[in-house]
Amino acid sequence: MARRLVIIGADAAGMSAAAQARRLAKPEALEIVAFERGAHTSYAACGLPYLVGGFVESAQRLVARSPEEHRARGVDVRTRHEVTAIDAAASTLTVRDLEAGSERVERWDALLIATGASGVMPPWPGSDARGVFQLRTLDDAAAIEAQIAAGARRAVVVGAGYIGIEVAEGLLARGLSVTVVERLEAPLGAVLDADMTGAVADAMRAAGVDLRLGVSVQGFDAEGGQVRAVRTGAGTIAADLVVVGLGVRANAGLARAAGIRIGDAGGIVVDERMRTSLPNVWAAGDCVESRHRLSGASVVIALGTHANRQGRVAGTVIAGGEAGFHGVLGTAITRFGELEIARTGLGEREAAAAGFDAYATITEASSRAHYFPGAQLMRIKLVAERASGRLLGAQIVGGPQSGKRIDVFATALWNRMTVQDIGEMDLSYAPPFSPVWDPVLLAAGRAAGELQRR
Amino acid sequence: MARRLVIIGADAAGMSAAAQARRLAKPEALEIVAFERGAHTSYAACGLPYLVGGFVESAQRLVARSPEEHRARGVDVRTRHEVTAIDAAASTLTVRDLEAGSERVERWDALLIATGASGVMPPWPGSDARGVFQLRTLDDAAAIEAQIAAGARRAVVVGAGYIGIEVAEGLLARGLSVTVVERLEAPLGAVLDADMTGAVADAMRAAGVDLRLGVSVQGFDAEGGQVRAVRTGAGTIAADLVVVGLGVRANAGLARAAGIRIGDAGGIVVDERMRTSLPNVWAAGDCVESRHRLSGASVVIALGTHANRQGRVAGTVIAGGEAGFHGVLGTAITRFGELEIARTGLGEREAAAAGFDAYATITEASSRAHYFPGAQLMRIKLVAERASGRLLGAQIVGGPQSGKRIDVFATALWNRMTVQDIGEMDLSYAPPFSPVWDPVLLAAGRAAGELQRR
Repeated sequence: MARRLVIIGADAAGMSAAAQARRLAKPEALEIVAFERGAHTSYAACGLPYLVGGFVESAQRLVARSPEEHRARGVDVRTRHEVTAIDAAASTLTVRDLEAGSERVERWDALLIATGASGVMPPWPGSDARGVFQLRTLDDAAAIEAQIAAGARRAVVVGAGYIGIEVAEGLLARGLSVTVVERLEAPLGAVLDADMTGAVADAMRAAGVDLRLGVSVQGFDAEGGQVRAVRTGAGTIAADLVVVGLGVRANAGLARAAGIRIGDAGGIVVDERMRTSLPNVWAAGDCVESRHRLSGASVVIALGTHANRQGRVAGTVIAGGEAGFHGVLGTAITRFGELEIARTGLGEREAAAAGFDAYATITEASSRAHYFPGAQLMRIKLVAERASGRLLGAQIVGGPQSGKRIDVFATALWNRMTVQDIGEMDLSYAPPFSPVWDPVLLAAGRAAGELQRR
Repeated sequence: MARRLVIIGADAAGMSAAAQARRLAKPEALEIVAFERGAHTSYAACGLPYLVGGFVESAQRLVARSPEEHRARGVDVRTRHEVTAIDAAASTLTVRDLEAGSERVERWDALLIATGASGVMPPWPGSDARGVFQLRTLDDAAAIEAQIAAGARRAVVVGAGYIGIEVAEGLLARGLSVTVVERLEAPLGAVLDADMTGAVADAMRAAGVDLRLGVSVQGFDAEGGQVRAVRTGAGTIAADLVVVGLGVRANAGLARAAGIRIGDAGGIVVDERMRTSLPNVWAAGDCVESRHRLSGASVVIALGTHANRQGRVAGTVIAGGEAGFHGVLGTAITRFGELEIARTGLGEREAAAAGFDAYATITEASSRAHYFPGAQLMRIKLVAERASGRLLGAQIVGGPQSGKRIDVFATALWNRMTVQDIGEMDLSYAPPFSPVWDPVLLAAGRAAGELQRR
């Protein structure tokens, strides 16, 4: 009889694992079953703001692989099936068929928990009103679309994190008036240092966003069940559409109830091979904690890249292969209109909090040779360890062609390079692509020079 | 009395050295004199094709710092002064004032040779005809401009290397008909592997270039001293403007005559501190040989980045500071229209020639999430050492936002990473910027997988 791999959650992590295990193990050796609470599999959640904004033409474009396609490839996906309990001692789980309303017990030899994360929604009065949404699923996007189609004109976005600013751009593009309410004093204030956020706020306001910073939401007013306003500590804002984007929490309840170890960050604890604290139980994706390679801390970072990679590692290991997930740097990128925003490693505050004696410097540089048409300024902040010059983190805010330069810093961080070493590298140069001293080299050279002179 | 630094050549390397030495040493301690044969200083030679193409509005925009500006900063630049001999034993040199026609002897305590490189021009009959140009200086660009203004319509570009394709794009943009004659079977055939050149040839032809590959030039026909045609091994091509772009040779004659050691690649031999074989004599820029960090070979690579960096190192060392130039990777980038072309490290042939047992693989990947508007394909070739998986080189040809990804590979090469390690890095992801698996990760992961399976 074939060994039986059961996967809970059929999105990025779960289905990457399934696909990888299927590649490595024949169906006679390994049966693969995946239970998915929702109706969809393997879709690009990161694309949802762009779907709402009309940049992506249809929801179908976001689906990388449908349940039927998975089944055709030897993975038995069962959508609208919710796992309600895991019995680790018996190696079984209880699954509810949401269509039929029936429950049954399924056995597993290997179990992969890929339950993802849920959006944070504080217990605000009125948050169950019609017109108050999160944007985590294709169904959420469809509901927002319906609200716009029904005539919504005044949108309020709660939270100016990644999702918040991406949704704000999207709703503006759809012609709605958009107010963004953020508790912190800056947009992206949780991911960028304060001295890097000015251009983001400027770009949002220039595009027409009514950006309200340092303002806390208190609840929602509704009429006939439909949201009409957002109540804040600084007045009431009329709204017929609200999107709450306050980050996520790992869906670890099922694992916790099964006795699996949960970490301080609220995610499932796994080792580099994605094994949980119980034998034959793996976990991957937004529901697990990852090791930050610089701070050493365990963090929950909900990002498709990690989910795919962790899923692939889990699938490889479950199928008997060798693989490992070697931690994260906290690399991220987004945009607001033409403005590109990226970060990797630790910010200045984060470095201090992690116990580093950190030095930070900001460099303004041009994306192209100064004389080349289209050259645009970017602002690069580097954080380095004061004594050694080791790079600890980088942040970039700038025009087109600035953001992806973060990958060079991420590669440098991965290799524990010093700013001095980074400044000496042989990077590409031609006038349409960079000044003679690429902004990366310029920023690193400046940091190295300042550290040397101190 | 102040120590006296004399610099021969007042362009990128020479003036970077001057500026750096001036920063580190007071005028009372160090006098800095630079002799320049031409009329200009510190201009961006890499921008010349874009000046010819009209992308850059005026020659003045390419001048980073004029002679007057250098003088105002304490560097005594004397343009139109040609150094004709170096007497190392006497620590003097002979310099000719090209305006006055007079010669005199100047003493130096420290000498920096930054004589640059000259374009290769075979001894073809007719190459001195009016209308036959190279594109190495602002004067060359002005002469080409004058030729166009005088009614030139049919341009022939000899050589399809970097300069050749950049000039071809520029002349097309100016409305000329353009034929490119290349001795090799592919454009950029000396810098890209053959299996990476197809898209370049396609893009050139699609833009209207009459691209003639595998064709050797034999000479030029002139009428009344004006070029009228290019004679080749495959017929005669009418032309009233010819630009020869066949690469460069280090200007090392002056150094050779002074008894300074010249390497096999024809450049001045220097150590990491830019010292030549003679005491108190430094050299930097296009006239020197650099160590290739992968092959170990000594190479002459004429590129503004190296010239600036080497000049800065020389200036630091001459002023008594510590600095080093730690070799090159052969990183380069260019474009033809929208097509971006980049490379770093060794190509497949080069790796074999350097003695590596090399494995190569080509990956096609999308610049953005496949569902995101504007996603474009790129083609990435990776070359890795077969036994270890160590990356040896990368080549990228693709649409917008593909080329600069070469810098991630350059950083990986600098750190001697394996393709396996590269594939595991935490690079940035958002739908407008990359698929979930960035092309860099995808290419490295594929190479790692293929090497593992062998």
